[in-house]
Amino acid sequence: MLNEIIENSIISRLASGFRRSPLQENQLHESDAEIVRIHESSSCSIAVTIDSISEEIESGLYDDPYHTGWMLVMVNFSDIAAVGAVPSGILISEILPPDLSSEYISQIQMGINEAVNACGTFVLGGDTNSGSRLILTGCALGSSPDNKFLKRTGCQIGDLLYSTGKAGRGNAYAITKLVSKNNGSIKYLPSARLKEALVIKEYAGCCIDTSDGFISAMDQLMRLNNCGITLIDNWSSLLDEKSICIMKNNNLPEWLLLAGQHGEFELLFTISPEKEADFLSSAHKISWLPLKIGEVTAESDIQMDLYGRNIRLDSKLLRNLPFSAAGNITRYLESLIEYDISLHTESLQKGNSKPTVSL
Amino acid sequence: MLNEIIENSIISRLASGFRRSPLQENQLHESDAEIVRIHESSSCSIAVTIDSISEEIESGLYDDPYHTGWMLVMVNFSDIAAVGAVPSGILISEILPPDLSSEYISQIQMGINEAVNACGTFVLGGDTNSGSRLILTGCALGSSPDNKFLKRTGCQIGDLLYSTGKAGRGNAYAITKLVSKNNGSIKYLPSARLKEALVIKEYAGCCIDTSDGFISAMDQLMRLNNCGITLIDNWSSLLDEKSICIMKNNNLPEWLLLAGQHGEFELLFTISPEKEADFLSSAHKISWLPLKIGEVTAESDIQMDLYGRNIRLDSKLLRNLPFSAAGNITRYLESLIEYDISLHTESLQKGNSKPTVSL
Repeated sequence: MLNEIIENSIISRLASGFRRSPLQENQLHESDAEIVRIHESSSCSIAVTIDSISEEIESGLYDDPYHTGWMLVMVNFSDIAAVGAVPSGILISEILPPDLSSEYISQIQMGINEAVNACGTFVLGGDTNSGSRLILTGCALGSSPDNKFLKRTGCQIGDLLYSTGKAGRGNAYAITKLVSKNNGSIKYLPSARLKEALVIKEYAGCCIDTSDGFISAMDQLMRLNNCGITLIDNWSSLLDEKSICIMKNNNLPEWLLLAGQHGEFELLFTISPEKEADFLSSAHKISWLPLKIGEVTAESDIQMDLYGRNIRLDSKLLRNLPFSAAGNITRYLESLIEYDISLHTESLQKGNSKPTVSL
Repeated sequence: MLNEIIENSIISRLASGFRRSPLQENQLHESDAEIVRIHESSSCSIAVTIDSISEEIESGLYDDPYHTGWMLVMVNFSDIAAVGAVPSGILISEILPPDLSSEYISQIQMGINEAVNACGTFVLGGDTNSGSRLILTGCALGSSPDNKFLKRTGCQIGDLLYSTGKAGRGNAYAITKLVSKNNGSIKYLPSARLKEALVIKEYAGCCIDTSDGFISAMDQLMRLNNCGITLIDNWSSLLDEKSICIMKNNNLPEWLLLAGQHGEFELLFTISPEKEADFLSSAHKISWLPLKIGEVTAESDIQMDLYGRNIRLDSKLLRNLPFSAAGNITRYLESLIEYDISLHTESLQKGNSKPTVSL
C-alpha cells in the first residue's frame, strides 16, 4: 500500500539493496528523520536527516539567495522537529557555479545564518564544490535528552489529528512564483516547529511534517498506520488567509491549498482524546494554539466535505500527479484542476448544486 | 598562514558569518570531520562529515556509476577514519537527471552498497531529487566508545610522520582519465582506512587524510601546527608502483604523484619517537605495515631531496595551482610541470646535473 505512491516506491527501490543497520531505530518511511544509536555499546541516539534543494532552484521556485539559504535550514530542521528532537547542528554542502557573485553567495550564507539562529542552533561544517548549477544540501542532527523520538507510526482509531498551524502558504507561494506572477505575492519564510515539537513529543501518537503538503502528509500517515482520516467540517478555517486570497485572485479552488505538494512545514500529529486537555494546556503555556484538523478513522480514506457532500479523496492520484506531470508545473496544476472539476461535476450530478468553495 | 591557501580562505569566508557551536569540539580547519557533543547534558559526542561528488562527475574523472557510488562512501568515511572514529552510518542525497537509466542508477546503488559493506557500516537514509546533472552527497557519522577523537593538530617537533599506505594512485588515475587515455590504465577503488585508524588513534599526535594529495595534507598539518616536514631521503619508495609506471608512460616526473590534488585516501599521522615501537607492534597485530614518510621540523617548509639537492617546496603555490587553472586539468598539469622544470633547472645551474627522477 505504501508503494502505490510513486515517491515511496522510488525510495523503496533505491533502498532495496541496502541492509538495515542494527543501530537504526526506525523502519524505512517510518519517520521524518533517521533515528540511530551512535554505537553498539552506547545508550545515546541521534536523529539525522539529509535534504537537498535542487529542483526548487532549477524550476525557479526559489530564486532569491537569502530565501534559498533559509529554506535549506528549515527543510532539514522541520524533519528534526517531526521526530521531537532538539537541534544539535547542521552540515551544509554547497555546489556553487563559478560565475556566482560573492554578493549572491553572501546572501545565501546570510539566509542560512539567520535560519540557524532562528532554530537556536549552529552550522557545524560543510563542503563546497564547483558545479554548473547551484545546489544546496543540508544534513541536520538532533538529539533527545530522554532518548525518545516521535515516528510517523503510532496512532489509534479515534485519535484526534492536529496541526501546529494553518495550511497553504507553500502552495500559494508556488502559484505566485511559477504560474501567475501578476495575481499577488505572498511572503513564504516558514520556520521549523521546533518549540512546538517538544510539547507534541509528550503527548502525540505519531507525527509528520507537511513539507509535501497537508494531504500528502495525511495520506502517508494513513498508509503507515492502516487507518483513514476525516477532516473537520469547517476545514476551510485551517487555511492561511493570505493564501486563500491568492487562490481567489487566480480563480482556483481553495481546497487545492491542502492538495498541492509544496508544503508549509507545519507538523501533523495525533492526540488521543484522553490526553487532549493536558496537551492543550501545555500548548497554552508556550502561547501556542494547535489546530484540530480531523479524526483518525478505521476506513482507509481521507474524507472531507466538499461541494456539498462528503468526498473520499483519491489521495493516491493526488500524490502521484507530480510524477505524471513530469516536473511541468502548469501541467501539474491543470491536472489538479481537472480532478477538482470531476469532484464538482459529480456533486452537481448528485444534486448538490452549490459548491462550498468559491471558484 | 592558513588563509594563504585559497581553499582554506574560501572555507573561512563561507564560515565567517556563522557563530561556532558550544557543542563543537574542533575549530574550523582543525579536523577532517566535525566533532560534536550531541546535546548540552550529554557525554556522547559524534563525528560527522559531509562531502559531495560533483566536480569529479562533471569533469569526467568519475564516469562509471559503480565507481562513483563507491567513491561517495569512501570519501566520507575517510574523514571519519581520520578522526579515529568508528562508522555509525551514512545518509545519501542523490540528484538524478530524469534521463538516467534504471541500470545506471542500480550500478550507483551497488557501488554504494559494496562500499558500506567494506566499511562495515550501513546506509541510514537519504533524499532524492531530480536535476540536470548527477550529484551525490554523503553525510557520514562516526562514534568513539571512549569519546576521544583525533584532530589535525597535536604534533610536536621531532615527531615521526607516517602514512597508512603508498601515495599516488589517485593522481595516476586522474592522468589516465583526463590527460592521456592511451598510456595505460590503473584501478582506483580506494578504501577508507578505518581499521588502521583505530590503531593510529591510540598513538598519534595528529591525523589527516590524503584526499587532496600527500603534499596538500602535509602542508595543512604544517600550517595548523606551526611546524615543517622533511621527507625521508628515499621518498620514492613511498610511491605506488603502478602509479610510477603511469608517470613513466606519460613522461612525467614521479614526485608529482605527491603533488597532484586527486589523492588516495591514506591517513597521514604523527607518532612521537618514544611511542614508535609500541605503535609498530600494534600495527603488526593487524597485519599492517605503516610507512614512515618523514619527520616534523621547526622550519615551516616541506623539504625533500629532488634533483640531487634538498628542496624547500613552494607548497603554497602547489596547493593554489588548481585555482589558477580554474578547473582546466591540462592547464593544471602544465603548471605542475612548469614548477618541476623550474626546480630541475635550478638544480642544473647549481651543478647537480643528474635528476634523480627519470623524465
